[in-house]
Amino acid sequence: MSYAEIDSYLTSHLDHSIAELSRLVAQPSVGAQNWGLDECAALVAELLQKRGFETQILPTGGAPVVLGERKGRNTAKTLLFYNHYDVQPPEPLELWETPPFEPSLREGKLYGRGVSDDKAHITARLFALDALLETEGELPCNVKFLIEGEEETGSVHLPAFITANKEKLAADACIWEFGGVDHREVPMQYLGLRGICYVELSVETAATDVHSGLGGSIFPNAAWRLVWALNSLKGPDERIRIPGWYEGILPPTERDRELFARQPDLAEEYRHRYGVREFLKGVHGGVELAMQEVFEPTCTICGLTSGYQGPGSKTVLPARASAKVDFRLVPGQTIERCLSLLRQHLDQEGFSDVHIEFLGGGPAARTNPDDPFIQLVVSTAEEVYEHPMELIPMVGGSGPNYPFVHELNLPVATAGLGYPDTRAHAPNENIRLDLYLKHARHMARVLKEFAK
Amino acid sequence: MSYAEIDSYLTSHLDHSIAELSRLVAQPSVGAQNWGLDECAALVAELLQKRGFETQILPTGGAPVVLGERKGRNTAKTLLFYNHYDVQPPEPLELWETPPFEPSLREGKLYGRGVSDDKAHITARLFALDALLETEGELPCNVKFLIEGEEETGSVHLPAFITANKEKLAADACIWEFGGVDHREVPMQYLGLRGICYVELSVETAATDVHSGLGGSIFPNAAWRLVWALNSLKGPDERIRIPGWYEGILPPTERDRELFARQPDLAEEYRHRYGVREFLKGVHGGVELAMQEVFEPTCTICGLTSGYQGPGSKTVLPARASAKVDFRLVPGQTIERCLSLLRQHLDQEGFSDVHIEFLGGGPAARTNPDDPFIQLVVSTAEEVYEHPMELIPMVGGSGPNYPFVHELNLPVATAGLGYPDTRAHAPNENIRLDLYLKHARHMARVLKEFAK
Repeated sequence: MSYAEIDSYLTSHLDHSIAELSRLVAQPSVGAQNWGLDECAALVAELLQKRGFETQILPTGGAPVVLGERKGRNTAKTLLFYNHYDVQPPEPLELWETPPFEPSLREGKLYGRGVSDDKAHITARLFALDALLETEGELPCNVKFLIEGEEETGSVHLPAFITANKEKLAADACIWEFGGVDHREVPMQYLGLRGICYVELSVETAATDVHSGLGGSIFPNAAWRLVWALNSLKGPDERIRIPGWYEGILPPTERDRELFARQPDLAEEYRHRYGVREFLKGVHGGVELAMQEVFEPTCTICGLTSGYQGPGSKTVLPARASAKVDFRLVPGQTIERCLSLLRQHLDQEGFSDVHIEFLGGGPAARTNPDDPFIQLVVSTAEEVYEHPMELIPMVGGSGPNYPFVHELNLPVATAGLGYPDTRAHAPNENIRLDLYLKHARHMARVLKEFAK
Repeated sequence: MSYAEIDSYLTSHLDHSIAELSRLVAQPSVGAQNWGLDECAALVAELLQKRGFETQILPTGGAPVVLGERKGRNTAKTLLFYNHYDVQPPEPLELWETPPFEPSLREGKLYGRGVSDDKAHITARLFALDALLETEGELPCNVKFLIEGEEETGSVHLPAFITANKEKLAADACIWEFGGVDHREVPMQYLGLRGICYVELSVETAATDVHSGLGGSIFPNAAWRLVWALNSLKGPDERIRIPGWYEGILPPTERDRELFARQPDLAEEYRHRYGVREFLKGVHGGVELAMQEVFEPTCTICGLTSGYQGPGSKTVLPARASAKVDFRLVPGQTIERCLSLLRQHLDQEGFSDVHIEFLGGGPAARTNPDDPFIQLVVSTAEEVYEHPMELIPMVGGSGPNYPFVHELNLPVATAGLGYPDTRAHAPNENIRLDLYLKHARHMARVLKEFAK
């Protein structure tokens, strides 16, 4: 059995797979609007069953998880695919060239809400399995799918679900839901995500707002309390002032630096795209900027609200004030410890009146760039993409990879069909059919090499 | 001529004056909604002309000012009345028992928007003049009226108008637009107002908001810049940190303290009404609380806005943040100097990126409690109210009294028909007819004694 036969199957059956994808995209599954989730879970289960997967639709407390499992030739090896069937809301509708839930094929691209994030990743992977089943009569190894329905709303039930289903999910490696090529058409391998601890800090100083002419010099002001409490968290030097915050952090390695040093300098793109004049801590670009972007714990004010915010002036002394604060965590930090340090710090600084509401998050997680599975995914990509896959040790964002890494103890590799203009989360979300085909070809190779 | 005759005239003609007031209240004049201002100015001018006043309706750049002047027996003495014909918006309409612009007389009270603030003060003063004209054939001294139409929207054009019309407005003393009795039915004399310098501080760090996972450790954050800039203005010790801010301030006198010491302790009422647990700087009440309330410069955050403020979490790094900040000024401070010190301070602290927009204000102004005119207003009140008028040297709020005090060099006395349940600015605004009559009786006495 050669890859030529598999590739030939994929090329000649692409229309068939795109038709299946179109059916999946036509089923709305908007988590934020609780629209079509059960129907979409059932459709996903049907697609798995069609390939002979044992399938379960399991409750989570939120949208159900679809689990699928099929044995392969090498029963000692199991590959787990993580995907999600939920999508972002389609709004603003008026900016779509064709309706978001009526998949439309134009100039080699398929348009629709959720087509790239994440439905094409589901069907392209099934498509790779079809090729293997057709040409070899069986899968090269055991394959499992975990397809959740809450990724776009924070995967709130996923970590507990994984902890409760560790045996069912036992595997040797995991392929993550997304991936793709960059603007140079180079396939990228993202190996880690920062953690996040998102809180709302709020203060209430009185039962009601007061006229500022009356209260200004005698009544406590919630907005001032909040400003002072926030100021105690971080100063203009960007160092988080909470005692113990940096203890136990696992610093980046020389290998991380070496990998980032191979990447193009993003400084000019950032300046141009976001209109930022300078970067924090005096960095100018290059590997220093890239490392600072992903290996630093952060304390970001995402929002401030208090008192009068309309045009002109209103002389009011606010009784309530609150801030949304996003702490990004690096390896070695835990949610529990961070929340506890934050509370202790506020109390010690005299801000026991500042209430902390935890709004969600999870720890950082990363896979060793030199893990054999990562090397396998990277090396199998080169033949397909005609370019070596590049390794990014860590990205600054967050996601639910930590239970896969820390609970299931899996190496997690990214591979996918995204590209810079894929417009995930935006109107006219789309995929390129050439990249869809490449992803299926890549996945077939990963499965075969992994099974060896 | 005795006060008995004047009082008799007023008592027997009260219905007539209330009918005139009702006509004035029925003419909407909502500054914030630019509704009926010219019509109301014309009506006010008509009421003055009816009493033989030379009347002018003068442009200001905003709502016109109505000026009226009539000579009296003693042409060497001129009393200036300051009033306003504009009113607050009537909303929320559903909370009115009778429509706001259909004056309604119930149980000795007249209800309607603007009836207390400030239209009854206009007609009650004209009513006093009617009594004097009727019983004496002329006014005892020269009388001028300055009736503006922008008091409820900050009197933005009044100071410049006064500076430009100093000769027309020349007088020896001024009666302020409002006044009244407190909950004990004691008439109060408020002798000063703090100044105000209201600014919006804003920061922009990028052209667009950025994902906080990407930008958190490398991009400047407008919300953080704002928090740090605000923190540099005032600390939890409530001391304003702007160098020079307290220089040149005229401290309160022993006489001020003596007058405040006579007043009831407000601590319990404040705790109860506003749900405040403690007061700033550790004061507990009494004269210390009263003095701190009005003689301290303040720096009050009235509003904060930045980034995401909705429910739950959004991982965004805000490009823009702003705060409304209300500095109350005490005697000795000027707007120009304060704005200049604020700019210098922000620059020196590294916040030259924080933009200052001046949204309005003016300096503090006060009249000496021992000024002979104040003593006259106080002593003439006792016969009418059967209680000595009490002197409050200063209140914490602000208003356009400074051009009267500093440009026209007038002692400014408060006297009026307000009472604690008058509901100015609120639904079911009302006046008590007994207090209306008393105010007219008081004003007739002030005019006669002043003319001597």
